[in-house]
Amino acid sequence: MAVGLHGLPPLHPVPGIRLGATAAGIRKKNRRDLVVIECTAGTRVAATFTRNRFCAAPVTVAREHLDQNAPRALLINTGFANAGTGAQGLEDARASCAALAKLMGCTGTEVLPFSTGVIGERFPLERFIAGLPGCLANLDENHWEDAAQGIMTTDTVPKGSSSQVRIGGHTVTVTGIAKGAGMIRPDMATMLAFVATDAVISQKVLQACITQAVSKTFNRITVDGDTSTNDACVLLATGLAGNAVIDVSQGEVYAVLADAVTEVFAELSQAIVRDAEGATKFITVEVRGGKSESDCLDVAYTIAHSPLVKTAFFASDPNWGRILAAIGRAPVASLDVNAVSVYLNEVCVVQHGAVAPDYIEAKGLAVMRLPEIVVGVDLGAGSSSARIWTSDLSHDYVRINAEYRS
Amino acid sequence: MAVGLHGLPPLHPVPGIRLGATAAGIRKKNRRDLVVIECTAGTRVAATFTRNRFCAAPVTVAREHLDQNAPRALLINTGFANAGTGAQGLEDARASCAALAKLMGCTGTEVLPFSTGVIGERFPLERFIAGLPGCLANLDENHWEDAAQGIMTTDTVPKGSSSQVRIGGHTVTVTGIAKGAGMIRPDMATMLAFVATDAVISQKVLQACITQAVSKTFNRITVDGDTSTNDACVLLATGLAGNAVIDVSQGEVYAVLADAVTEVFAELSQAIVRDAEGATKFITVEVRGGKSESDCLDVAYTIAHSPLVKTAFFASDPNWGRILAAIGRAPVASLDVNAVSVYLNEVCVVQHGAVAPDYIEAKGLAVMRLPEIVVGVDLGAGSSSARIWTSDLSHDYVRINAEYRS
Repeated sequence: MAVGLHGLPPLHPVPGIRLGATAAGIRKKNRRDLVVIECTAGTRVAATFTRNRFCAAPVTVAREHLDQNAPRALLINTGFANAGTGAQGLEDARASCAALAKLMGCTGTEVLPFSTGVIGERFPLERFIAGLPGCLANLDENHWEDAAQGIMTTDTVPKGSSSQVRIGGHTVTVTGIAKGAGMIRPDMATMLAFVATDAVISQKVLQACITQAVSKTFNRITVDGDTSTNDACVLLATGLAGNAVIDVSQGEVYAVLADAVTEVFAELSQAIVRDAEGATKFITVEVRGGKSESDCLDVAYTIAHSPLVKTAFFASDPNWGRILAAIGRAPVASLDVNAVSVYLNEVCVVQHGAVAPDYIEAKGLAVMRLPEIVVGVDLGAGSSSARIWTSDLSHDYVRINAEYRS
Repeated sequence: MAVGLHGLPPLHPVPGIRLGATAAGIRKKNRRDLVVIECTAGTRVAATFTRNRFCAAPVTVAREHLDQNAPRALLINTGFANAGTGAQGLEDARASCAALAKLMGCTGTEVLPFSTGVIGERFPLERFIAGLPGCLANLDENHWEDAAQGIMTTDTVPKGSSSQVRIGGHTVTVTGIAKGAGMIRPDMATMLAFVATDAVISQKVLQACITQAVSKTFNRITVDGDTSTNDACVLLATGLAGNAVIDVSQGEVYAVLADAVTEVFAELSQAIVRDAEGATKFITVEVRGGKSESDCLDVAYTIAHSPLVKTAFFASDPNWGRILAAIGRAPVASLDVNAVSVYLNEVCVVQHGAVAPDYIEAKGLAVMRLPEIVVGVDLGAGSSSARIWTSDLSHDYVRINAEYRS
């Protein structure tokens, strides 16, 4: 029931990147579950990872490998998260990298591993290794869609985004894929997202670019407030576009690329929310008039995580009292309730802390029945603002997560 | 589907307290929705209220009245919360107190108002006032059960608890009632709870007693993390038991009373969780080995609020990886994941941050199928501990809250 997603947009190939996917039967049969993203020599890689302290073995290993070598390949599996698996999990993650490296003729530390799926169960290394040759045979620069399908778990649709810009007379492409669809409250990263560009860019500026783009996109979405153990967002730059190297993270040229990357990140992160587990609504929460961005984010997340607010959205019930109650318990130091206004799209529901004089239920109901809703909150206390994206809480969220391992 | 609640225990009358309930048709017909608790002259009252900044009009008015007079009556309605109703709401709350005071021959400020129900809709004052005579005609010291039914909203069973202790040769009674069942994450108070004792006790010590008891009971429960706008917990002391006045909040005599009050509070607060909206499991989260109680509470609430953990409990799925992921994102300053152990009842599931060597799924499954489960977490970092009570997240929670206003 992905809200407002109608198939993948055209995904432009990125020179220097080839992708392969296969059904290795890692957890279930007959679904793509193993993906290799091959990068040309000289590709720069920037990444952000989960801040969950129980980070998965592949996250630890990917960080280690990034410190040692420029990666030649990303290796991604679904079905098993390889998290909470202790020393055995680290050994398995390293062994999977070594197995791919042997087939590709590189070293194990030139491979970055990524896993998503059930936490705590041991990784089926043999099935994994058996699937690698098929995955490599599938490598093609046009296989972004195959890869997008290969990283899906409870996602109902593959997610991708692509943008092309002109930099110094050269066409520069930015293309990416991502997956959700639950345990989504990224903390300095997201679930899995892999984005590539052929821009020529320095390592330092590439890292600045991903950090900036993530802070406005993947770090502004929440489905259930649960931060995954396996979150990772990777930005690859193959350097084949022919543009003059971008080596400062400011100015017009940088802005053109950064905007394109942010646009792709935004589309991918919103796609994760649109296809959130059980989602029937796509909800933007915009908080303005705060004393600080942090106050605005606290209010926005308190609304977005309230099970009562989320079920009211599912029911298309303009029960704005639940939004008010959420604002009232948000961890904001000094909140003047009499200064607060609340909007559903263009409809002012609450003014000066109480129901707006011209509000009638029919107006709220008309908005709540829409699949895409903006909840606007004005705290009336300052000039800061923040925006996040979230989904509703439906019967299907409970069903999907109650049945997840069966 | 209240978990482990099998009817009300015997509720001993408290000398000096009479209760009346009636079906005033405030929101729905033919259900008790209006309650008066009459207190004898000289009754001392201590109360704690919600910390939600959008507190309801009756909370504001009750606070004002408490500052002015010793109350002679508590006036409670369900159906409308009278929250988010601005100046009109305050006026309505005061008018309801005045109407009762007129019938009882006291002043409006001697009445404390309490409301629970839908937020944001105007209070139906006329139906309210029309119901008062019937409510007063029903006053009786044996009507604790009627009152317990009269304050129910989405509760499936009435909730009460009663205890008798001996103090200086005198029998002292503590009896109370409470309601849940959603929007439950008390913050220095709870949903509605009304407890009375006939103990002779000073005002200062009565307040110390409620504060201490609430901190161990009502402030340790959560259903959905949503703090209500209308929370209130009231402890009445009629002073008719004949014991020597308890005027210090320490020592053996105080402890006897405080233990009885805490026991009644604990039973009521657990009853709220056992009858939480859609609950099929009663879950105790015990965190020990923390550097501070606050760290332990942060971990406990992060587990208790995780929609993924809650749906796993609903599904009886020993998906302990979700518990680990919740611990890993809890706001604890320095967490050594390799020191963490997790238990389901007596079964050690996680040891040193990874699956315990002798753990097998069948052991976890056997625990998860029980209606009452203790999640034990040892952070391995210190000697502090904390315990909270919560429920699971079921299809019925979503159904109840999606249909709440219809």
